[in-house]
Amino acid sequence: MDSNWTDLGLQSPEGLSRDRFLGGKLWLNQPRAGYRAGVDPVLLAASIPASAGQSLLDIGCGIGTAALCAGTRVPGLRLSGLERQAPYAALARRNARENGLEMVIHEGDLTRMPPDLRQERFDHVIANPPYFRRNASIPSHIRDREGALGEETPLDLWVDAASRRCAPGGFVTFIHRAERLPELMAAFDARLGSLELKPLIPRRGRESQLILLRGRKEGRGAFRLHAGLLLHENASHTSDHSDYTREASRILRDGESLIFTG
Amino acid sequence: MDSNWTDLGLQSPEGLSRDRFLGGKLWLNQPRAGYRAGVDPVLLAASIPASAGQSLLDIGCGIGTAALCAGTRVPGLRLSGLERQAPYAALARRNARENGLEMVIHEGDLTRMPPDLRQERFDHVIANPPYFRRNASIPSHIRDREGALGEETPLDLWVDAASRRCAPGGFVTFIHRAERLPELMAAFDARLGSLELKPLIPRRGRESQLILLRGRKEGRGAFRLHAGLLLHENASHTSDHSDYTREASRILRDGESLIFTG
Repeated sequence: MDSNWTDLGLQSPEGLSRDRFLGGKLWLNQPRAGYRAGVDPVLLAASIPASAGQSLLDIGCGIGTAALCAGTRVPGLRLSGLERQAPYAALARRNARENGLEMVIHEGDLTRMPPDLRQERFDHVIANPPYFRRNASIPSHIRDREGALGEETPLDLWVDAASRRCAPGGFVTFIHRAERLPELMAAFDARLGSLELKPLIPRRGRESQLILLRGRKEGRGAFRLHAGLLLHENASHTSDHSDYTREASRILRDGESLIFTG
Repeated sequence: MDSNWTDLGLQSPEGLSRDRFLGGKLWLNQPRAGYRAGVDPVLLAASIPASAGQSLLDIGCGIGTAALCAGTRVPGLRLSGLERQAPYAALARRNARENGLEMVIHEGDLTRMPPDLRQERFDHVIANPPYFRRNASIPSHIRDREGALGEETPLDLWVDAASRRCAPGGFVTFIHRAERLPELMAAFDARLGSLELKPLIPRRGRESQLILLRGRKEGRGAFRLHAGLLLHENASHTSDHSDYTREASRILRDGESLIFTG
C-alpha cells in the first residue's frame, strides 16, 4: 500500500483490524500494532457544537476517528484532517471512503502546514494530541507508536496551530490528559476566549484522567467549569462487561452529542 | 473602638452581628454592613491538610473566619493572619480571644508585608481573595465593601505573596470564583508544584461557581483534577430550608475535613 508501512515499523497493511464505532454507524480500519483509537476521539467528536454546512479540521487526525465520528453525527459537516504520517493519512482517506463520508486529508506537520491548508479557516478545529511527555514516558521501540504517542511537538504549538486555523467566532476543542491542564489552559488562554472545561470522570468520586477544553476565537466570555461527565457506573472495574453510564453510552454507542452543560 | 470604623463607612462598632459557624463550635463578630463571611472561608479552612503543631497564615484574613475555622478543627494549629484594614484586624483579634483561640494578626498590605512577617515561613498559606474584578464589577458606594470585595490587588500578587510565605513542602490553598481559574492556575503553576483542583458544584450537573486550588512549594507531582464536591441536594433553590448534601453538611455543620479525594 505504501512503502512507509515498513519504515514506520508496521508489520504490513494486512496487519489491520476493522473496528466498529458509534454502535456500528462507523467502521474504521486501523493498524493492529501501535496507537489504536479508544474512546477519546469519540468523546472529542461528540462534544463539537457543529451543524450542517460548517467546516471542521482535525489536527493530527490519524486514521480519521474524531473527524469521521463528527461527520457521522452531523451530516453535511465538511471534514478536513492534517496528518504527518503518510500511512495514517492513507487509512483516513480509505476510512472516509468506506463509510461514505467526504474528508480532505492534508499530509504535513502542524508546525509546517501545507500552503493550501494555511489559506483556510475552519468553524471547528479539534485535536487529540499525543499523551505522554517524551521526557516522562518510556520510549517505545516501535516507531509508529512513538510518532502517535510520544510527544515530539510541544503542546503549546498544537494550540497555536489550531488557533491559527480557526475562523473568528469558531471553536477550538482539545481532549487531553487531565494532568496537562495547567499548560493546556495557559496555551488556550493566551490565544482564545470563552474557555470551557468539561472534566471526564472515570468513576464516581474519582479524579479525572481526561478533560475536554474548548475555546472560542475572539471569544470574550468568562471561563466556565462544567460538571464532570461520569463514564463508568461501578465503583471499580469488576468485569469484562461494559458498565458505561447511560450518558456515556448515549454518546459512545448511540452517537449522540456530548453537551458541556448536560 | 477604633476611629477607622467611621473612615471605613461602617456605621459603628455596635453595627455588629455575632454569627455561628461550624454548628456553633465557633461564634464570630462581624459588621452587619459590608462584606460578610459566607461558606467560602469555611470550605477553604476545611480543606487544609493541617495537623497539630503546624503553622497557618491567612492572607487577607478579614474577621478571621478561615483561620479560626481551621484552628477549631485542628487544635494546636498555630494561626496567623494578615489584614490591611485595622477594624477587621481588631475584630479578628477579638474573635480569636472570644473563642479561646490564639491567633497573631499582622496589619499591612500583602504587597508590603510587615518586616516581622516577612521573616516567617508557614506550613499552610491560605487566601480567599476578593471576588470581583474592579473593571467588571459595579463599584460599591460603601468603602469597606469595596475594600473587601473590590479587587485592588491583582490575583497574581496574591499568589506571589502566599508562595513567598510558604515553607518548602508546605501548601498554598486558595478558594476563588471558578471563572478566575485560568489566571489563578497560571499564577500557581509559575510558583508552585503538585497542583490540585477541587471544583465545588452548587447543584447536580451545574457548572462550578467556586473552586479550591492547592499547590505545594517545591512540589513535583503532576496536576490532579478531583471530582467535584456537591453542595446542595435539590435541583434548584426551592425553599428557605437548607438542602446541603450530607458531605457539605459534615463540613459546614459538623466541622469535618474537606478531603480533595473524598
